[in-house]
Formats: sequence, structure tokens, C-alpha cells
Amino acid sequence: MTIRVYDLAGAEADRRFSPNCWRTHMALAHKGLAADAVPWRFTEKEAIAPSGQGRVPVLVDDGKWIADSSVIADHLENAYPERKSLFGGAAGQALSRFVSHWADLVLHPGVARLVVLDIWRHLAEQDKAYFRKTREERFGATLETVQADRDRRVIQFRQSLEPLRRTVHAQPFLGGDAPLYADYVVFGAFQWARCISDFRILETGDPVAAWRERMLDLFDGLARKAKGYQV
Amino acid sequence: MTIRVYDLAGAEADRRFSPNCWRTHMALAHKGLAADAVPWRFTEKEAIAPSGQGRVPVLVDDGKWIADSSVIADHLENAYPERKSLFGGAAGQALSRFVSHWADLVLHPGVARLVVLDIWRHLAEQDKAYFRKTREERFGATLETVQADRDRRVIQFRQSLEPLRRTVHAQPFLGGDAPLYADYVVFGAFQWARCISDFRILETGDPVAAWRERMLDLFDGLARKAKGYQV
Repeated sequence: MTIRVYDLAGAEADRRFSPNCWRTHMALAHKGLAADAVPWRFTEKEAIAPSGQGRVPVLVDDGKWIADSSVIADHLENAYPERKSLFGGAAGQALSRFVSHWADLVLHPGVARLVVLDIWRHLAEQDKAYFRKTREERFGATLETVQADRDRRVIQFRQSLEPLRRTVHAQPFLGGDAPLYADYVVFGAFQWARCISDFRILETGDPVAAWRERMLDLFDGLARKAKGYQV
Repeated sequence: MTIRVYDLAGAEADRRFSPNCWRTHMALAHKGLAADAVPWRFTEKEAIAPSGQGRVPVLVDDGKWIADSSVIADHLENAYPERKSLFGGAAGQALSRFVSHWADLVLHPGVARLVVLDIWRHLAEQDKAYFRKTREERFGATLETVQADRDRRVIQFRQSLEPLRRTVHAQPFLGGDAPLYADYVVFGAFQWARCISDFRILETGDPVAAWRERMLDLFDGLARKAKGYQV
């Protein structure tokens, strides 16, 4: 039975930009698992109601509904133990959680403030009011104000990447010589920006940009081929 | 042949407060390796000259001089493979590096700004001018100014711990059910503060404080018994 993933889409059904959905796409590819990625919009809560919550990614595997990218990764590791490990063992799995929290708490808010208005511009009409309302409440400002002045603020964003930068400067991937789930967790944030905005969040020559190129090359260029911007 | 560690000390020879030396003490204890911890002051550069640089920890193992806490950890793992692993495998070792960079770049500067004047107060007379000069150059301000207003700034410091907090709230240690080198890396920063300052950097009830208690309990209370403050 084919795995199904509910995958955030924009006005164009093939613009798939959710950072957390990209974690799942990369994890599925790492495991060599095919999946149907079903386009989903923010306001289609009823379509994923069996998952017990209202956000994507949602995975349906063998009739089981699973929400939350971290829970999905753990499920894939447990359900397909004969396939290449996403974590490289218990220690790798435990430490991936720290990387994941860092991405959620430092990286995602940083990226959001650089591209949130660009996200809104790409949304399906049905999603635009919902997105604006929920995000403006979260930021306490209009989307236009949040994204304004990003040419200056991107400098601070790039500085916040320094722990990542030092790591991938000294080794090819966060996971070491080969990518692991921690790489996909962090990559999701960069792919989010790349799929939704022509704003250049990384400078050429940044070791993080070189790592991102390695990530874009994985799985026959899976992420590189996705609809997005060449930045 | 007994392992020797050059270990930063204050005016009192038994006040050992270096965060990076604590990484090494905990790593040695994890491996069940005994070591002579030789008190060392900032200005005793010649004592560690064979290491090719001027900072501690420096490990001398079987006549080999090794500097840098990360290099020392890798050495201990490679030289004593039959003893309990510090990393739990290659993935754990690779991901520990990210945790280590986060500690160096986020945690250490945050702690330093809360206790730097307290460090100076505990130093041997011979070290005081050196420490003040190098740190005031680094911070671009007097030690008094850097540490001032810490009651307000500690709030932001505690917020910066959120990736750590979420991780050790959901599992006992960064390494999972048992501590790994990544735990010692992060713990070093808290032990630094505890050994040198009566300033309370963690609130009671913080999951990070509960994790720190678990760390203080390890190895028969090795870190808890160290000369410091009960905060």
C-alpha cells in the first residue's frame, strides 16, 4: 500500500514549500520509500482530521495516520528497520532532537521573518486571509512590516547559523560523511525559503551554502528539481 | 602511565572552573580513566608549551600532548575503544560537534557575560591583569560593565537555552537515556558558573536545572563535590 503524505501547496499545486514537509520528503527518499504527496492547503483541516490535529506533514502508512515530522521520522525508522537508518543509532536519534529543537526555535523564526510576505503571495486564495491573520497575531505586526528591512536583518540571521556553519565546514554533513535525519531537519528551512522566495538568504562562499548544494544534489536532485527560485 | 590533565585553577588551587576542562574531567570519568589534574594558571604558558598552544585543557597520555577538549574527547574514544563510548557511534560523534559549536557560540558567551567579574575575583594574583586585559578587549568593555545588569540579562540567557530545555524535558540526557559527550560539553558551561559564582543562572523548576542535577549526580557526585557555590 503506497504511503500518502499531505503536503502543503501554494496557489500552484506543485509549489511545495513547507519546511516540515521537506523533512518528511527527504526522510522518505533516504529510506527509499515511494509516497503520494497530496497537495493540501492550510484551510483544508477536514482532509487531515483523522490525524487528530490540523497541520502537515501528515503521513498515512498502511492505514495509520501520523502527524508531526519528528514522529513521522521515528515511525519510518521503526517501521522500516531494514532500510538505511535515518539516525545511525540511538545516540544519533537522541542528538537529532536537539538539532530539531534548534531548527524550530532559531532557524524557522529567522527564515520566516525574511520571507513571510513572499509565502503569503504564493498562497491559494482560500488560504490568504487565514495565513495573514494567524501569522500577524504570532508576530504582532503586519506581514509587510515583518519582512521589511530584511536586507539588514539577514546579516543577523546568517550569524545565527554559525553552529551549523562550523559543523558543515569541518565535515560534509551534520551526520558526518553522509546525511542523516538531522541534515533533513535543518535543510527543510532552507528549502522552504528556496521554494517560496527569490530573496538570497545565504551568501555565495558560505560553507552553509556549499552544504545546501550537497543537500540539493541528494536523491537525484530531488529538492533541486522542486518548483522554486534559483537562489 | 597515569594520564595528566592541565586544569585551570583560581587563587585556591582546588577551585577548578574551566568549562572546557570540565568537559575533559567528565569524559575521563565516563571512560573510567584516572587522571592527575595539575592546577594551572592562565599565565603559565610555558608549562603547556609542548602542546603547541597556550590554553587548557591539555592532556598528556602515554607521553603524547593533546590540546583542545574536542580533540581530547576524540583521542579518548580512539585510544580506549574497549571502554564505554563517549559518542555512541559515528552518528553520535558527528552530531556532538554541532552541540559543541552551539555551546561555544551561544552558551559560553551567555554565561561569560553573567559571571566574568566573578571569575576575575577568584583568580590568582598573577592572572588578574592578563585576564582583565584579554577579556576587556574581547568584550569591548570593562568586566564591571559586562557583568552589570545581569539580573535583567539572565532572562534572555535562559531563553537561549530553549533548544536544550526542550530536549532534556523529553529525555533524561542529550544522549538519550544515558549521558554522552554532548552532555558533558553543555554541562561544562553550567559547572563553570557554579564553581565561580553565587549568581543563580537557572531557575528552580527549569528542566535544564533538573538535568544539571542529574549531571551533578554522575560518577559518584564528581562535579557536585567540586569547590563551588550551591546555586
